[in-house]
Order: sequence, then structure tokens, then C-alpha cells
Amino acid sequence: MEKKFFDHIIHGGDYNPDQWINTPEIWDEDMRLMKLAHVNSATVAIFAWSLIEPEEGVYNFEWLDTMMDKLHANGISVILATPSGARPPWLAQKYPEVLRVEESGIRNEFGVRHNHCLTSPVYREKVRNINRILAERYKSHPALKMWHISNEYCGECHCELCQQAFRDWCKEYYHNSLDELNEKWWNGFWAHRMTDWSQINSPKFRGESHVSAMKLCWNRFVSESHISFYENEIAPLREITPDIPITTNFMKLYDGIDYQKFAKKLDLVSWDNYPAWDKGRNTDEALETAFVHDAFRSMKDGQPFFMMESTPSLVNWHDVNKLPKPGMQELSSIQAVAHGADSVQYFQWRKSRGGHEKYHGAVVDHCGHENTRVFRDVARLGKNLEKLDDVVGKYTDAKVAVIYDWENGWAVKHFCGFNNVNRSYSDECMKWYKPFLKKGIAVDVIPMDADFTKYDLVIAPFLYMLKDGTIERIEEYVKNGGHFAATYLSGLVDTDDRCYLGGFPAGRLKDVFGIWHEDTDSLPEGMKNKATFNGKEYDVVHVCDIIHSNGAKVLGEYKQDFYAGMPAVTENAFGNGKAYYAAFRNDDNFAADFCDMLIKAANVSPDAPINADNGVLIRKRGNCIFVMNFADEEKAVVLDKEYTDLISGNAVSGKVTLPVCGYMVIE
Amino acid sequence: MEKKFFDHIIHGGDYNPDQWINTPEIWDEDMRLMKLAHVNSATVAIFAWSLIEPEEGVYNFEWLDTMMDKLHANGISVILATPSGARPPWLAQKYPEVLRVEESGIRNEFGVRHNHCLTSPVYREKVRNINRILAERYKSHPALKMWHISNEYCGECHCELCQQAFRDWCKEYYHNSLDELNEKWWNGFWAHRMTDWSQINSPKFRGESHVSAMKLCWNRFVSESHISFYENEIAPLREITPDIPITTNFMKLYDGIDYQKFAKKLDLVSWDNYPAWDKGRNTDEALETAFVHDAFRSMKDGQPFFMMESTPSLVNWHDVNKLPKPGMQELSSIQAVAHGADSVQYFQWRKSRGGHEKYHGAVVDHCGHENTRVFRDVARLGKNLEKLDDVVGKYTDAKVAVIYDWENGWAVKHFCGFNNVNRSYSDECMKWYKPFLKKGIAVDVIPMDADFTKYDLVIAPFLYMLKDGTIERIEEYVKNGGHFAATYLSGLVDTDDRCYLGGFPAGRLKDVFGIWHEDTDSLPEGMKNKATFNGKEYDVVHVCDIIHSNGAKVLGEYKQDFYAGMPAVTENAFGNGKAYYAAFRNDDNFAADFCDMLIKAANVSPDAPINADNGVLIRKRGNCIFVMNFADEEKAVVLDKEYTDLISGNAVSGKVTLPVCGYMVIE
Amino acid sequence: MEKKFFDHIIHGGDYNPDQWINTPEIWDEDMRLMKLAHVNSATVAIFAWSLIEPEEGVYNFEWLDTMMDKLHANGISVILATPSGARPPWLAQKYPEVLRVEESGIRNEFGVRHNHCLTSPVYREKVRNINRILAERYKSHPALKMWHISNEYCGECHCELCQQAFRDWCKEYYHNSLDELNEKWWNGFWAHRMTDWSQINSPKFRGESHVSAMKLCWNRFVSESHISFYENEIAPLREITPDIPITTNFMKLYDGIDYQKFAKKLDLVSWDNYPAWDKGRNTDEALETAFVHDAFRSMKDGQPFFMMESTPSLVNWHDVNKLPKPGMQELSSIQAVAHGADSVQYFQWRKSRGGHEKYHGAVVDHCGHENTRVFRDVARLGKNLEKLDDVVGKYTDAKVAVIYDWENGWAVKHFCGFNNVNRSYSDECMKWYKPFLKKGIAVDVIPMDADFTKYDLVIAPFLYMLKDGTIERIEEYVKNGGHFAATYLSGLVDTDDRCYLGGFPAGRLKDVFGIWHEDTDSLPEGMKNKATFNGKEYDVVHVCDIIHSNGAKVLGEYKQDFYAGMPAVTENAFGNGKAYYAAFRNDDNFAADFCDMLIKAANVSPDAPINADNGVLIRKRGNCIFVMNFADEEKAVVLDKEYTDLISGNAVSGKVTLPVCGYMVIE
Repeated sequence: MEKKFFDHIIHGGDYNPDQWINTPEIWDEDMRLMKLAHVNSATVAIFAWSLIEPEEGVYNFEWLDTMMDKLHANGISVILATPSGARPPWLAQKYPEVLRVEESGIRNEFGVRHNHCLTSPVYREKVRNINRILAERYKSHPALKMWHISNEYCGECHCELCQQAFRDWCKEYYHNSLDELNEKWWNGFWAHRMTDWSQINSPKFRGESHVSAMKLCWNRFVSESHISFYENEIAPLREITPDIPITTNFMKLYDGIDYQKFAKKLDLVSWDNYPAWDKGRNTDEALETAFVHDAFRSMKDGQPFFMMESTPSLVNWHDVNKLPKPGMQELSSIQAVAHGADSVQYFQWRKSRGGHEKYHGAVVDHCGHENTRVFRDVARLGKNLEKLDDVVGKYTDAKVAVIYDWENGWAVKHFCGFNNVNRSYSDECMKWYKPFLKKGIAVDVIPMDADFTKYDLVIAPFLYMLKDGTIERIEEYVKNGGHFAATYLSGLVDTDDRCYLGGFPAGRLKDVFGIWHEDTDSLPEGMKNKATFNGKEYDVVHVCDIIHSNGAKVLGEYKQDFYAGMPAVTENAFGNGKAYYAAFRNDDNFAADFCDMLIKAANVSPDAPINADNGVLIRKRGNCIFVMNFADEEKAVVLDKEYTDLISGNAVSGKVTLPVCGYMVIE
Repeated sequence: MEKKFFDHIIHGGDYNPDQWINTPEIWDEDMRLMKLAHVNSATVAIFAWSLIEPEEGVYNFEWLDTMMDKLHANGISVILATPSGARPPWLAQKYPEVLRVEESGIRNEFGVRHNHCLTSPVYREKVRNINRILAERYKSHPALKMWHISNEYCGECHCELCQQAFRDWCKEYYHNSLDELNEKWWNGFWAHRMTDWSQINSPKFRGESHVSAMKLCWNRFVSESHISFYENEIAPLREITPDIPITTNFMKLYDGIDYQKFAKKLDLVSWDNYPAWDKGRNTDEALETAFVHDAFRSMKDGQPFFMMESTPSLVNWHDVNKLPKPGMQELSSIQAVAHGADSVQYFQWRKSRGGHEKYHGAVVDHCGHENTRVFRDVARLGKNLEKLDDVVGKYTDAKVAVIYDWENGWAVKHFCGFNNVNRSYSDECMKWYKPFLKKGIAVDVIPMDADFTKYDLVIAPFLYMLKDGTIERIEEYVKNGGHFAATYLSGLVDTDDRCYLGGFPAGRLKDVFGIWHEDTDSLPEGMKNKATFNGKEYDVVHVCDIIHSNGAKVLGEYKQDFYAGMPAVTENAFGNGKAYYAAFRNDDNFAADFCDMLIKAANVSPDAPINADNGVLIRKRGNCIFVMNFADEEKAVVLDKEYTDLISGNAVSGKVTLPVCGYMVIE
Repeated sequence: MEKKFFDHIIHGGDYNPDQWINTPEIWDEDMRLMKLAHVNSATVAIFAWSLIEPEEGVYNFEWLDTMMDKLHANGISVILATPSGARPPWLAQKYPEVLRVEESGIRNEFGVRHNHCLTSPVYREKVRNINRILAERYKSHPALKMWHISNEYCGECHCELCQQAFRDWCKEYYHNSLDELNEKWWNGFWAHRMTDWSQINSPKFRGESHVSAMKLCWNRFVSESHISFYENEIAPLREITPDIPITTNFMKLYDGIDYQKFAKKLDLVSWDNYPAWDKGRNTDEALETAFVHDAFRSMKDGQPFFMMESTPSLVNWHDVNKLPKPGMQELSSIQAVAHGADSVQYFQWRKSRGGHEKYHGAVVDHCGHENTRVFRDVARLGKNLEKLDDVVGKYTDAKVAVIYDWENGWAVKHFCGFNNVNRSYSDECMKWYKPFLKKGIAVDVIPMDADFTKYDLVIAPFLYMLKDGTIERIEEYVKNGGHFAATYLSGLVDTDDRCYLGGFPAGRLKDVFGIWHEDTDSLPEGMKNKATFNGKEYDVVHVCDIIHSNGAKVLGEYKQDFYAGMPAVTENAFGNGKAYYAAFRNDDNFAADFCDMLIKAANVSPDAPINADNGVLIRKRGNCIFVMNFADEEKAVVLDKEYTDLISGNAVSGKVTLPVCGYMVIE
């Protein structure tokens, strides 16, 4: 499959000429440098509101007109940003309601970015207005190729407007029935039965902080508030520039917004990718970054996405900002493209002279010229990307899916019980994703309500909460021949965070898995159990479900504690498929061996018949195969036949040695 | 001695049928299951206010009538709770003054439990009213056997009403004299001399946070506010149901309320017992739990108490909730009975479906049936408890007391000086309690104003503050032949937290102990000194008093630092008794050897002539001897004669092997 | 050089007779004891406001009159304090505006000390008034020898008055030009361009927390507020008692006030010195304390200062308050004198009976008599100090300076980037100070705008920010023959915290140092690089500048990572001088060897020709040489000729052995 917005890989990034308005000679220098750097796109006007509208109703577009023209004249397309991510001081001063209120109940002062109420009618109107003016002004400008909405939506507000909006949300969600809300939130506990919608407030440390179902509602409400804020933003753009695609930049696995839901509203998903390279764990960092790429790719059924931000050198906001070795950022960029990115974009083109991000890496450093290692590296990559037109728009087919579901992540975060310390949901999902990637098998990372039928194998790590219909869909999938594997503490609560009655896992899943989960043990850091599987023994940490087989084949047992001898890994034939359960939180060795078995059982094979040493990751996209060495030493790759190396243009075959940070894109 | 409220050990716990009001079939199932579990009591209506009074002045008792009848019909007695621990949303909404204000000065919103102002006249009136109605309704119900007041009183409020109440409290405490307050709070320091009572505010981080005497007053005020809140609660109950005993559930060594003072107002002390078993320190956990049992038992002159809450499996609020091995909770329950509990009660009968505590252990799990390990364990214990009627109401005589005084704990917490890091008061007291328990010698845990005369030996660890009259009472006790041992930093301040002038320990105690305490050294973690005692050498950590003997016999000396050779352990003959001083914070080896000497000196002997391996604890209550194995392996016990094992009904004698978690109750 | 305020070393300290007003017999006892302790000065009336002015406009000076007379009659001079450090409760109650507002926006309640708004006109007026009354009353009292203004100025306030004052400050600082402010704060970033001065607020976590240039302004504003508060305080004193010198007590390297600027307004600098002795690092503690002494000495061009507070035994506010061994505090006091102190003063004369500091060490303990080790030690030191009249007022000449600049410290603290964890500025400066002190070479510790010309060698560790003119002054200094050494991340931003454009280090410094600093790597804790220098290899941690030589001689190279082989240490001949750059954060071994080379290059020699073992520090002041053993064992010293030991009066020569804590002052 294929879906293209551009003909070439986009190479560019955030460009803030507005910060240099007093030194316009730098603008011309930027044009010269962009061409040297093989940049073909610039994202402009993020955070430019205070320049565009210096006073209420007074607009200053001259500089932006000039810039749009200049970029166009230099063959650089423009991704134009809407400015809602940071409002001008006058706006906050005149309409204090636009600023956020924290849990304390105290309204923030003007400052930083974001920091706006998601509900405020005034702010929504001001945003709609400035967006309309932007769209009207540039709708016909030939440089305009895409809208970049706001910036890294995040956070929440507890003002009275948001309280009322949350109450309204609850009212609608619970069908105007307080009885339903009381039952779903289990308000009989601690005398919480409400008798009026006005009794609802946002969760907070100095109020209600212990009702997990309510906190789940708050997460849903906040997430939907962001989406509705976005829909308000884009209304004039859709009207005025219906053909210009729209995106906004997501932040990794940020859990304040259900990106899987939000993505449906975007023409194109994009995200900001900042791995911490060269801190002694590059292979894991690469695998975890790949997981995130695949999560974003999977949000729109595999459609290519944009890597809207990355750094050409280092960032400034890690605790310790190690400088990645030369080649590392190039490899990191190529990995994004391998996993479905159609862009390599930087934050930022030029380092700002002051402000919070003045030491965040950029293509052009404070020295201002092109004679830096970083600039040369960027230029080389830009040139290489120009050779990858064949990749643009291409999809990757995956036969394996790992469920990583935003809402389940919320439910996992909120519950109090079992192991309250070691239960990172994303770590667990990544653990079950990595073995496939290491073997060159593409994996989709999907929410629990995605279509399972296109996969041969679905893994559901720690699927604690089951949204409505999930039980039935799993049952149907396995009955029809699917392979479905779940891990500990799965199937405990329903979509409203209430425990299923009648035994775990929920309802018919007991039959699907052929087990009954009676109890759960938790192990403090430093305490371990052991489990067997296929004749080997594995460490067991953090969480151990105590399960009984009701017909499932026991593939592994616990070796210690009072539940020694009880099942730890099970397999159950159900209909035409099989369901597996790994009852414990386990180490990477177990995940690898267990996934090997699943791969064989589901008859899944690598995407490309290439053998490579450990540390080399292989990924097929369209007809191109990306071979990438993330190890700290050179590695060998054995090709099954002759290919063309798209970067060098040479034919390659047989055994190839990749240097550190080396990669090939072959066809 | 003996004091009984029931003829049998109470077996039951918190039961919340109000949470299941929409599924009444579960109520009948509960009756069936309770009988299977040998449950004879249920504590109902805790946190039921929002169901009982759904609107102001509108009452709904139908469900509770039904439940009382149902329980009675099934032979299960009812401990009826008053609902003040959590108010309905409508009440907080209509009368915001009932909610707490934190130190920030911001009023809390409705949420969680507790969270009520202790002073609010409105809340006190509402509580009195609902309690009156409850009492009127059920005063003649045959199931009603006891009142359970509110739930785990705790916390504090900083609202304007509480400020005024605190000012009034100070005014009364200081005899309407600001001069006295200024002198006692040493307000000359930092220009704090007050000229009007209205200048007093509660201590807080953003106000006065450094006046320890004031913080001590605040502790006393808050503690008395809880007691006065309680007295307001029970007034209608005393009036309407004068024959129904009253209790409330305390929380371990919670330091926000002076339980030793509060206990005087209860008919029966009860507490919630949640040891963290099977985390690798079971013997210490058992000894520390025993200390707490003995503290509660000692509060009403040895009168048996209730273990009002415990878990049949695990809790949900520890960081990591390890599942205790089978048998552990039974042993833990038996330990409570051994130390004076006349009940084994659980939080909770049935796991709630939602809410914060849905994963807290319960007799009936979410699966809803009796075929779980936990249910079977509870039922077996219930059956065993039925064989222990001989124990009910029985006292234990102790000839040794350890002073653990709530008010001293406050004073210790507040002072700034010496070792500000390592000075846990309760740890120090437990350290001096354990050696006796390990030898089968019963210990009372008493406040400093308890009667010393009934003991052969009194230990006063870290008795930093001396309430009025304590000096004289110690002097009198020793003069009359008592053995009294104190440890470091004892006798520094008076009841108002002012240092005694003229040298430490205070006043005549210098003569009683025959020492002068000139200075105190503190050792950071990792630095050690050494001290000798009886030819052995011990580690010295954290705190070292530098003392001089003024006639005391020096039993041990420091070995290092500039005070090497100075006394570290002393003994002083005074009148007919002896006073001992251990000048340093010491390890368990020293405590054991030093207590051995004290045991010999005071001529104290074990309660029962039974020898047992380490890890086995022996406790006599009435005529029954409890022999309990807390070790992680089987242990041997040698009986001095033939006994009857009350559980098995068999005769036992000679050497007996107890399995892990094994126990005997023999007579 | 010489400048004297007294003829003898002042020996005394904080004396609070106001706390003992109800026991005047203690006052007479104090006189007796002070004479025994060789005390010749008392600092009185700190925090006495609530006694002096018990009600608004009602004054009570009787006790102070008595005390002044009594001290005078006993030959003890008085340093009289102004009471602004803690106001009476009535004042805070009547004028709430005098209390501070924290970042939360919530006004503090009365409590602790300080805690006053720096701007409040009411508080300034009240302070001026009480100071005027004090000055009028005691202007002719013969005991009055010095004013001690307030106490340990510190902290900040965020009230509306301070907001307005900050806005006014900014307006003046930026020449009434918002354009200038917007450019200097780089407000184009994140749409922060301001259009009205009223849009400025103080930086805070719930508002603007990310604009480093603004935070730098806030630091400057707060610092100047303290100075202006002080100037308001002293106006009546200067008017009424023009001949009485004025000081206030500074707190070590407290970074809330630019002490280097404040010092210019004082007649005499004084500070409170509380090293943590005997925690296993005495030599380092001594070196770091010496650094602070030298920083205060350097603030008024080498003029002697007062050690206004120290403890005769221990403090109460360290986490763990180790008792220093006998002799340690005497050695510590002598060190102060060696480095320029003309006083040894204690906090406190007598331990208070209550309050927060009752366990802070004092000359007179709670026992109240002189028969304590501490009292005896103080008396012996007092007697010894009487023999050091020759030292009083004497200067020390230094040929080496280390730049430690308060404003640079602020800039270093605020920036976000590179290594955000390990970049303590004061640690770095101390690292470069210690090697000189260990060799007996005196060092001045100066701000960057001090005069360089009197030094042979100037070290500028981590000179991140350059105030206006600094580039030119460095260039001039080196051109004229000076030796100037800088370390990593120097010369990045200008006085407004904006990055220099055109390459680092800033502007012409690239020529002065002969290098270009292209990039900076940061190493997480545990990761190391290596660098060579003079044939040896050193550990490199935390920060590594990647530099190029543009003509500089490369003295050392990196050994690892992708910049192995690039310069790590350089030397550049420029004009008649040399400029050195150490590009990395390094260990003490490197600092020692590098300083050795600098010492040789700059031809600097030790102040006194005395050889001593490690751990012995040697310092010349005037004609006196202080030889001090800070090691934990006795140490040998070899004298070059015969000297007179001022303490013993004996002649000393040849090899002398100093015991632990031993010292000599020889002439």
C-alpha cells in the first residue's frame, strides 16, 4: 500500500525567523545554508503569535509574507504552524481565564508555553480567529504545503470552566443517570453516592484522589478536551484550505492524551523523537524507539507518518545531555524512515540566542556558519535522503500485533494493589515487542479495539482493563484460528474500571485461555521466584499470577514459594486457534524464548531473508530493506542475493560489513 | 483477672452490604458463606451515610433493617458503626465548613474519607444527629452488641474555626496568662513574645514551623479535638443504649492522637493490625507486632482488646503487596489472641467491585465463591477459634514494663539537634522490648504516668521529656526497691519542652542515676564507636551521651573518639533499688545482654517453663500458653509437663516439633 | 596594609539577656563567666524587638540600659543589633503586608525569623523608626562599638508590592525600553514579547519559570532589594552615630544576595562560619572554609573581616551533628584569624532554654556553670587570642586570584543544557583554589570585575557569563603579561544571558586563548573520558568541551570517544602573557599538576619558606605565620629559621611536631 503527501522525503524542521527579526541579514544567510544542508521544508510560525498579533486585533504579517516568499523562492516548502501553543502576554493579561488552574485551585500566571485552559470559550475563539486569518492570508501561497497545529498538546486545567465541562462530560457519558455513575464509580464505597451532578469535581490531591474509575473518566475527558480544542482550531483551516493536510506533533508515549483516538482526526500523524543515544544501551534504545515508531504508524492503519522533531546533535533537557557520536543521529533518522516516517525534521534549524532552549541542538549553531561537524552531518544525510524517493508513502505489512492501549495504560496507572512499584505498562509491552523486531519480523502496535483478524499472532501484555466487546473479539479471533497470548493481571476490570465478578480472567476468557486466575503474588525488588518453560528455568520478578489450568496445557511451572508446581505458562487450544498465558513478569530471556515458540506456532516469518549479527536491525518498507547497525562495533550481514544499495548506487551481495552506525537501504 | 464482652472469640469483620444494594441475592449468599467460614460477627454501616441519609433529613433504613434481621437470624452479632468517617457529598456541598483546610490555607474539596474539620459545629451536630437516629432505631435490636465509632480517626484541620479553638485551648492550658505562654514557648527567642491570644496560629510550613513547644501544644490540641469529637459522637449512644459497649479502631502507633489518653474514654480498645509478613523479617515483624498488641492491652490496665481489622490474605496499600504464605495469617491471628485480643476481625468480608480498596484482601474474593485457598484458611481458623473460649476475657500479668509514651514521642519528633536523622523513638522502645518477649517474659508497654509500683523492672528508652511529677515518681520507685533503666537523651526537657537547667538528667535524677550527662555526640550513618559491657564489645551508633559517674558503678566504657574511657553503661544503687543508664544507641546484641543482666538483677522469670528454639514465641494468657513458630523452618519445643492442646484436643508433652507457621494453645 | 576597628582580636558573640529577663540573677552570673572565658565583646539585642517595643510605639529599654551598663562595667564592648530580622507578632498582625508571599501567591503567616517583605513601605518605616530610637538612645553609650544590622539577610517575597518593584527595576534596567527587554530576554521565543511593563511578574513555578535572563534579573532585583532594605535600615544610624562602624552577618556562599556588591556598603564584612568537622574530610573542609574566608576578605580589597558567628562545640541544624574533637574549634577559629578575621565570635553565649536553637552549641550550657569541657576550651582560646594583637588589622598580599563571581553563579544555575546535574560552580572554583593553598600560596577570591592587574595569575573556572567589559579586560591583562587560565564552558553568554554569536569563547577571547570551542559533551555519573597532560593521564568527568586549536599550543588531548586526539588543555602566548584553557571537568590530581605548571609559568612562590607534611596549612598574615595541622595525626613542620611562637612566647626553629589540632602563630 502507499499514501503520499510529498514526492520526496521531507528534510527540514522548525525554523524561527521571528526570533531574528532584528537581524534580517540572518534570514538570507539561512536560505544559503538551507540549500547547503539539502533542506527542502521549513516549519514556521510556531510560537509566533506575539509577533503576528502584537496587540489585540492588530496584525503584523509583513515578516511572514517575506519569509514565505523567500522560502518558496529557494524551493523550500512551508509547513505553517498555528500559534495556540503559546499566547501573547497581552492576551493572558486581558483574559485571565485562558490560563490554567492547577490542582491547588490557584490560577497560573502567564509563562512558559501551553499553560492554557482547554475549555475557555475566549481562548477557543481567539485561536479560531487567528487561525482563520492565517488561512485566509496564505491559502493561495504556493509554499504552503501542510498545517502544523499548535505544538505538543499536553497538560490539563482545573478551573471552574473545566469543572463544569467535566460534569457535563460525565452526564453525557453516563446517560444522564447519576445512578449509573454511582454504580460505575462504586460510590457506595466511602459514602460517595452523589445526588447532584454539581458534586463532581476534578480529581485532585486535596479533594478526590482515590476513585480510580473517576480518574479514568478524567483522563478520557482531558483527552477529549484536547481533541475538541484541536477540532475548534482546525475548523477555519478545513473551510478555507480544504486541500492542505493537517497534522500536529505528538510526544512519544505521553499518556495525557489518547493518541490512538486523536490520530483518527489527523490527516497525518507526526511525532517528536528524542532517543538518548550513547548512554550504554543503544540496542535497547533502538528497539524502544522502533516500538514508538510502530505505535504511531499503526494509528492510521499503517499510513506513513512524519518525524516532526528530532535533534541533529543533542537536546538540552535530559539530565545529562550526552553528545551522540557522529553518524548516530543519521542512523536514528534512517530508522525512522525504515519504520514509516516520510520526513526527517529537526528541532531546530538555528539555535536561539536566549531563552530556555538555546542549548538544544540545531543545524546551525551559535557560531552561525556551516563549518561544524553537525552541519556537515546534516547535509550528508539530506543528500542521502534524496535517494530514497522509492520509499515515500510506502506501507509495511505486519502479521504480528502487540496491544498497547492508551486507556488500559490509564487503568493500570490508577489501581492500588498488588505491586504498586514495578508495573510499568509500556515497559511490559516493549518487552514483548522486542523479540520480534530482533528477528526482523514487523509488528503493529495497536489499541485493543483494532481489528485482530489481519494478524496471525496478537500479544496482549498486561491487558488489565477490557473495553466493551473485547472479550467477544478475543474469543472470536481465537476460535477462528488466531494465536493470542496474554500476560499477568489481564482481564480484571471492565471499561469502567470495575472488577469482573465470577473469577479472572473475565467471563468467557476463562474458557478461551483454559485457566482460572485465583490470586496474585507480588515480589519486592530483590526477591525472585523461578519458572520453567521448555526445559529451561527463568527468573520471575514483581508479579506472579497464581493460576489453575482448567484444561490448558501447562507449559511451565513456578519453582518456589507456596505456589511452586502451579502453572506459570499455559497454552489452550480453543476453536481453531490457541490462547497462551504467561502468568508472571519476566526477564528478556523468557520473552525471547516464549516469542520463539509463538512465532513457530503462528507460522510467522521474517520480512526479509537476511541474516545479521546481534545489534543489526532489519526492516522492510515497500520493496526497500533497511539494514542498520546499532551496535558499538562493526557487524556482519549476509545478503541472500544481489541488491542495489540506494545510497551508494552500487550492487551489494554476500557478506557485508557494516561499520559502527553503518546502514544500507537496499532494493 | 478477667473482663468479657462476649463468651466466644469474635470472628468476623467489616461487612459492606450497602455496596451491593443493587444485587440483594449476594446478601443471601453472604449469609451462607459466613456460616461456612465460622463467622460470628459482622461490623456494618461503616461509610454508609450516603445510603442512610441520601438527602438532608431523609433517611433510608430499610436495607439496614433487613440486614440486621438477616444477620441475627443467622446467629451473627452486629457491631454497628457510626458513619462520621465519610460524609455524603450533599453534606460537604451544603456546609463547606465541614471539610478540612490544610496548612496551605486552602480548603479541601470533597473526597476520600476522613477529611472533616474536627471543630466544625455543623459537622458535630450532623454527626450527633445521625448517631441519635441510629441508636433510637436499633437500641432494641437483638443483633446489636457493640458500637464501632467512626473509623480510624486521624488527621488535622487548619481552618479558622480550628485556629480559634487552638487559641482557646492555649488560653485554658496556660491559665489565661500570655506571660506563661511566652515563657513556656520561650518566645523571647526570635522576637515571638505575643501580646494577644489572637496572634496564635496553628504551626505550618508557611508560618510558624520552628517552635517545638508550640508544636507540642498543637499535637495535644489535635489529639484532644479527636477525643472531644468522639465524645460528641457517643453522647446520644450513651444516653439511648447505655449497655452497649463502645469502641473505635486505632491504627498501630499512629502518632496524631494520644491513644493512651483516648483509651480511657473507650469501653474497649481495638486496633487494625497489618503486619508485612514474608518479606524476609518475620521474627522481627512478629516481635514488633507483639509490642503494639501489648501497648494497646496496657492502655486499659491489661484489659483484653479487639483486633478490629486484619487481612485474610494481603493488603493493597503497601508498596509491594507480598502474599503471605498459607498459615501465616492464621498464626498472626493467634498471636493477637495470645497478646490479649478477644477478636479476629477482617477488613473485609467481601472485596468491593470498584473503588480504592478493591484489591485489599477479603474473605470472599471477586470470584464470589468459597473455593479459594483464602476462604478455606479463614474457615479453618474460625473453627479453631471456637475452641478457645477459655481464653476470652483473660488478662496477663507482667512484671516488666517498657515506657512508650505518646507525648514523649511528639517531643522527640520536634526537637532540632544532635542526630536529626536516626532517632526513631518507637524503634528504640521496641529494641528494649524484644529481649524480654524472646525469653517468654510478658511486658507491659506503658505511658510515663502509669503506676510503676506493680513492676519489678521498668525500662525507659529515650525518655527525653518528663511530664510533671515523673522525676519524683522515678525517684520514689527506685528508692522503694524498683529497678529502673533509662537510655540516652533522657531527662532533657520538661512537660512544656523547655530544657531543665542545672545539668542533665533533670534535677534529682542525677542522684538517682548517679551520673552527670555533660554532652552528646552524634554519629552519621556509617560511623561507629565501640562500647564494652561485661567483657564484651558492642557497636555504638547514632547517639552517644557523654556522661560522668557521680557515684554510679561503671559497667561499660566507650572505646573510641575523644571520650574513650568514659562511662557508657552505669548502675547506681539508690535507696532499695537500682537505676541503670545506657548512654548510647546500640545494637540488638547489647540490648539482649543488658536485659539479661536486668532480668537477673530484678529477679524476673519467664511466664511458662517451656524451652523453645529461636523464632518460637511463647506467651501465657490466663491459664493458656500459646506456642507460636514464626521462623521459616520447623522448630522444636520442649514442654515441662503434659498439657492439653486446645485445638486438637490431644494431650501433648515432651519435645514437640512445630511446622512453619505452626502453633499450639495448651492448658 | 592595615585597617583596624579594635586593638585586640574580638572574642565574644551573640548574647541574649532578653531571653532571661525573668531571671536577672543569670545576668550577673553571665558577667562573671564572660570574664572567666576571656570574652571582650557581646552582640546584643538581635531578635529583641518584641521586648524593646512590646506594643506599637511603647518602648521598653530599661533592661537594655542595664545590660549595656553592666557589660561596659565589666569591660565588654557591645555590638548592638538592629532588630529587623524578626518582628513582633503585633506588627505582623496589624500590618500583614510586612509578611512574605511565596511563589504560590499565598501570604505567609507570622512565624520563624526573616519572613518579611523587602519592599513593604510600612516595614521599612517601622525598621527605620526602631533603628532611629536605638541609635538616639545609645549614641553616647561608651559600650557601643559597632552596629550589627539585622541578621543573615536572605530570602525573597512575591507580594504585589514586590511585583511592582520588580517591574520598576526592569524598566530602569532596560532604559525604559520594552523593545530592549524583549530582545534581551529573547522574548520572541515562545511568544513572550511584552507590550506593557505590567505584564512582568516574578519568576515562579506556576508562571514563568523558564526564561533564564528574567531569572537573572530577578536575582539582581532581589539582591538589590536586600541592599536597599539595608540602606534604609542604616540611614538613621549613619546620621546619629556616624563614627560607629556598621556590619551585617553574611552566610557562607549563600547565593540569594550578591555579597560582592553588598560588601561595598559595609564598613566591615562579617560572616557566620559553621564547618562540619570530624566527619572524615577535615582537610577538604579546611580548604573549602579557607576559600570562603578568602572570598569575604577579598570583598573589600583584603580588609580584615569578622567571623561574627561560629560554634564553640556543635550546631543543631546539620542532619547529624557530630561533636568535633577537643581542639578542633580552636583550630578552626585560628584558621579564621589566619585568613583575615579580626574576631572569633560565637553563636551563642548561653544555650536558650526553649525554641528552635536550644541544642545549638554555646559557651555556657544548660547546666549553667563553667565546669564543662567546652567552656574550658573557649576560655583557653580567649586567653591565646589575647596574644595575637600583632595580627589585628593586618592584610595578606596575594599574587594569585580565583574568580568566583556571584552573578556568574546565578547564570550557571539557570541555564538548561549540557550537564544539568553535575555543574556546581562553587565546587569548581574551590577545586582550582585548593592546590595553591596547599602550597602555602595566598589566593584572592574575586568577582570578574575586580582589578586583575595586581595578580601574576588569574584563574577563571567555568566563567560562563561575561559581564560587559570582561572580554576587553582579560585581553588587556594577558596582552600586558598576565597569566590567565579558564576552564570549560567559559565565555558563552553576555551579561544578559544571551549567547555570544560568532563562536565560543566570546569574541576576541578566541584569539586570546587561540582556540575555537565547537561543541560540548556531557558525561553521566559513572561514564569517564581520559585526558593527557605532561605525559600523565587523568580522569575526565561530567563536561568536556570539544575545542580546536587556532594557534594555541596543545598541552593535553582527549583519549576516548569520537573526539579522542582533540585538544583538552591548551596554552596560548598572547602579547606578553599567556592564556590557558582546561576544556574538561577534572579531578584533583589534574588540578594540582596543572596549577603546578601555572605556578612555575607565573613565577609565584609560597608566602613563607616553611615545609610541612600534608594536612598542615600555612598562611602568612602581616608578619605572622600561621601553621595549622588539620590532619587526624601529628605532623612535622620544618622551619627555615628561628621564630617566636606568639602563644607560648618561646623561640621555635628546625623541625617541629604539631599534634592533632595543633597550631603555631610565629613571627
